[in-house]
Amino acid sequence: MADEAADLGEALRRQADTVRRLKQEKANPEEVAEQVAKLLELKAQLGTDEGKHKFVLKTPKGTRDYNPKQMAIREKVFDIIISTFKRHGAEVIDTPVFELKETLTGKYGEDSKLIYDLKDQGGELLSLRYDLTVPFARYLAMNKITNIKRYHIAKDFDIAGQFDPMIPDAECLKIVHEILSGLQIGDFLIKVNDRRILDGMFAVCGVPDSKFRTICSTVDKLDKATWEDVKSEMVGEKGLSPEAADRIGEYVQLHGGLGLIEQLLQDPKLSQNKLAREGLGDMKLLFEYLTLFGIADKISFDLSLARGLDYYTGVIYEAILLQPQNAHKEEPVSVGSVAGGGRYDGLVGMFDPKGRKVPCVGVSIGIERIFSIMEQKVEASEEKIRTTETQVLVAAAQKKLLEERLKLISELWDSGIKAEMLYKKNPKLLNQLQYCEDTGIPLVAIVGEQELKDGVVKLRVVATREEVDVRRENLIEEIKRRTCQP
Amino acid sequence: MADEAADLGEALRRQADTVRRLKQEKANPEEVAEQVAKLLELKAQLGTDEGKHKFVLKTPKGTRDYNPKQMAIREKVFDIIISTFKRHGAEVIDTPVFELKETLTGKYGEDSKLIYDLKDQGGELLSLRYDLTVPFARYLAMNKITNIKRYHIAKDFDIAGQFDPMIPDAECLKIVHEILSGLQIGDFLIKVNDRRILDGMFAVCGVPDSKFRTICSTVDKLDKATWEDVKSEMVGEKGLSPEAADRIGEYVQLHGGLGLIEQLLQDPKLSQNKLAREGLGDMKLLFEYLTLFGIADKISFDLSLARGLDYYTGVIYEAILLQPQNAHKEEPVSVGSVAGGGRYDGLVGMFDPKGRKVPCVGVSIGIERIFSIMEQKVEASEEKIRTTETQVLVAAAQKKLLEERLKLISELWDSGIKAEMLYKKNPKLLNQLQYCEDTGIPLVAIVGEQELKDGVVKLRVVATREEVDVRRENLIEEIKRRTCQP
Repeated sequence: MADEAADLGEALRRQADTVRRLKQEKANPEEVAEQVAKLLELKAQLGTDEGKHKFVLKTPKGTRDYNPKQMAIREKVFDIIISTFKRHGAEVIDTPVFELKETLTGKYGEDSKLIYDLKDQGGELLSLRYDLTVPFARYLAMNKITNIKRYHIAKDFDIAGQFDPMIPDAECLKIVHEILSGLQIGDFLIKVNDRRILDGMFAVCGVPDSKFRTICSTVDKLDKATWEDVKSEMVGEKGLSPEAADRIGEYVQLHGGLGLIEQLLQDPKLSQNKLAREGLGDMKLLFEYLTLFGIADKISFDLSLARGLDYYTGVIYEAILLQPQNAHKEEPVSVGSVAGGGRYDGLVGMFDPKGRKVPCVGVSIGIERIFSIMEQKVEASEEKIRTTETQVLVAAAQKKLLEERLKLISELWDSGIKAEMLYKKNPKLLNQLQYCEDTGIPLVAIVGEQELKDGVVKLRVVATREEVDVRRENLIEEIKRRTCQP
Repeated sequence: MADEAADLGEALRRQADTVRRLKQEKANPEEVAEQVAKLLELKAQLGTDEGKHKFVLKTPKGTRDYNPKQMAIREKVFDIIISTFKRHGAEVIDTPVFELKETLTGKYGEDSKLIYDLKDQGGELLSLRYDLTVPFARYLAMNKITNIKRYHIAKDFDIAGQFDPMIPDAECLKIVHEILSGLQIGDFLIKVNDRRILDGMFAVCGVPDSKFRTICSTVDKLDKATWEDVKSEMVGEKGLSPEAADRIGEYVQLHGGLGLIEQLLQDPKLSQNKLAREGLGDMKLLFEYLTLFGIADKISFDLSLARGLDYYTGVIYEAILLQPQNAHKEEPVSVGSVAGGGRYDGLVGMFDPKGRKVPCVGVSIGIERIFSIMEQKVEASEEKIRTTETQVLVAAAQKKLLEERLKLISELWDSGIKAEMLYKKNPKLLNQLQYCEDTGIPLVAIVGEQELKDGVVKLRVVATREEVDVRRENLIEEIKRRTCQP
């Protein structure tokens, strides 16, 4: 219904345009009358009183604008994330916002129902990218790159290449740890698991091979659903035997560290499975490296972690924020995932004509969620956030000094000083000072008749109201000195 | 035909998936046989030998990837542009990549045939944004903002608000001048005109009111087409009288500075037109301000400048790069527009339910074109561009030092040092040094058995091959000192 109304609305508007144009062009009256009749018919269909089309002023569903204050917080988040990626030697690449539909289909599994398709523009079926991992794999295959460490739009970091086991994987976890520590958004925990351990576990629990991926998707719901609901999906929707489900249920309750790894390596069933043994061996190595990095205390080997996407092949991880521990509860409560990733050794090969594989491991930062948390934190703290970096306002003490203000501000800009002025010919001094109070500009350079005669500018410090006369030739130096920006 | 093949290809792939799934699930053989038959039929239709679907590995038409070297150049361009915007006190906002289709339609005029529509996702007709100006106007109207100076994705700068004439307009031109000077991509010229002067000119030349916008679009083609072609479009396609076209032809040849403005203010026909007089008066004021800013020598008042988009209402401008002046030619040759913009006082009102206007003036930087020019320049100069900022490589002199390398690099990262290591358990020293040569890392911190005993690290300067033993506790300080990054 909504569609229909929108379509009608558009037709109506187009028809109104036609009528307007014909009238303007003083067209043949008969033709005008015909088009007006059509217009009236459309109006009747839409059922509006005046035929006035109600245009709703909004952004598309699921999208939002960012205002300057939100962008300032966002830039702070990006700064911390990007500087971490750069600290780890990552290059940066970029790929288009849309891809051939075919590039995206068949890579994600059950988790990607909502891929936005574009209307055909003539010859190509296009979709908006769903994540940055599949475009990255397409990029590697297309450019025959076998070795790269890169980040992508301030949120995705990946290491591609054939390396000794778990060294790049451990670095990805170190990066998550550095970013979440740097952001100072509270205590966190990084859960790790391995798709090979999961697959081994499925095998020894009696899950048929063909159901591994779909059962994996169901296990992934354990962070939001109870075991009962998850089991009922396994048995009811996915057709697993209740016994197999119960066996899975025992494993997925387990979480711990090196101790749990050792225990599972001795597990009579799991230790018989080759995949599980490989996964557990690598998990042990990973924990050794994480201990050397000094971050093992924030990592939990958790058999319930599954990750939704199909393309993972080895280690997987997910970072969650913990709410302040409640005295009445035994376990800290999770407030949701803020980063995740894993190893995907098969994805590049899916794009290569000869199926050549490039092993990859990566991490994606949940910037939208992190940004919301930072925003709430700022709101709660009533911390005042500046949305510009302006160092000085060029102001006038009297009227008729626009030319002098324009000359001075031009000099400042050309020397790299961040400067503003009010766009009025004769602004009041009080309004100019108020503007600085409102926007947080720390200095005012005041041009006045007496100062012009004396070859000085009055420099006012907004916070203290201190005023000093600075010789024109020393002004730039003085502004730099006082705002600590070289 | 291409579509059809793609559709068939997709159907084929989907059918192949179905067959594979059924086989995996050991489904009823009759059902499998039926689906296999369908698959063979599709294969036959596609006419491929093995029925193997050829997937073309490419980005969508009109899009491209950016590799790390290209991104490094791009970041340099963005740095110069964003720091200029910040120097002028701009805040930053962001809006979604797509908008309601209705937000975009009817704003651009003849110039916007290629708006990408999205497929209906249920209830909303969406299109990819075509520029940043219309989303910005939508943002202002939606949030009832009457006053803002902002930039948007590193390329669009606008000043919205009711101010004294031509002060913000002059600042936009100053910004274009600062950016093009900062980029050092050669000599440039900024053409300016005013829609009111154009409309006044059309009126006195005998163009009917209803044809102003469409004739304006035709004039806009003068930078690429000859006057003869433009005249023929005016007369043939747009139905203008040849006499009116010829009168326009005389005006659009004119370009100059304050002198031309004075001359046109005396023009017997043009000076009778109220709109033209207003436009010329403001143009005079603009040139006075540009002179105070010291940039009037790069600005040309050019009556042939029209700009394609419908939404401009006052001053318009466009910056072009000039090729090195050829001795045999009288005029420098343009290599195309690299920035443009103007005043659009009516656009916000189109979104406001009560039609309340917010005057705006802005400039958009042609980053794609600028980036191509910068890229060509870098290629030509054979200048070596680093794609990472890594300060030091943590290397091992002997085998079995992986743990020591992991401990050291972790310390460096935690102290904010940008550091890398090879992801091998036992890399050869030569390979580690070669990696620095290849990627431009300036320092190598070499861990060796003797050094460990002595409590030092050998710090090697890649460029000079100089090596010094640095005590472990002084290492971070020494790396910072030598790479000049505090």
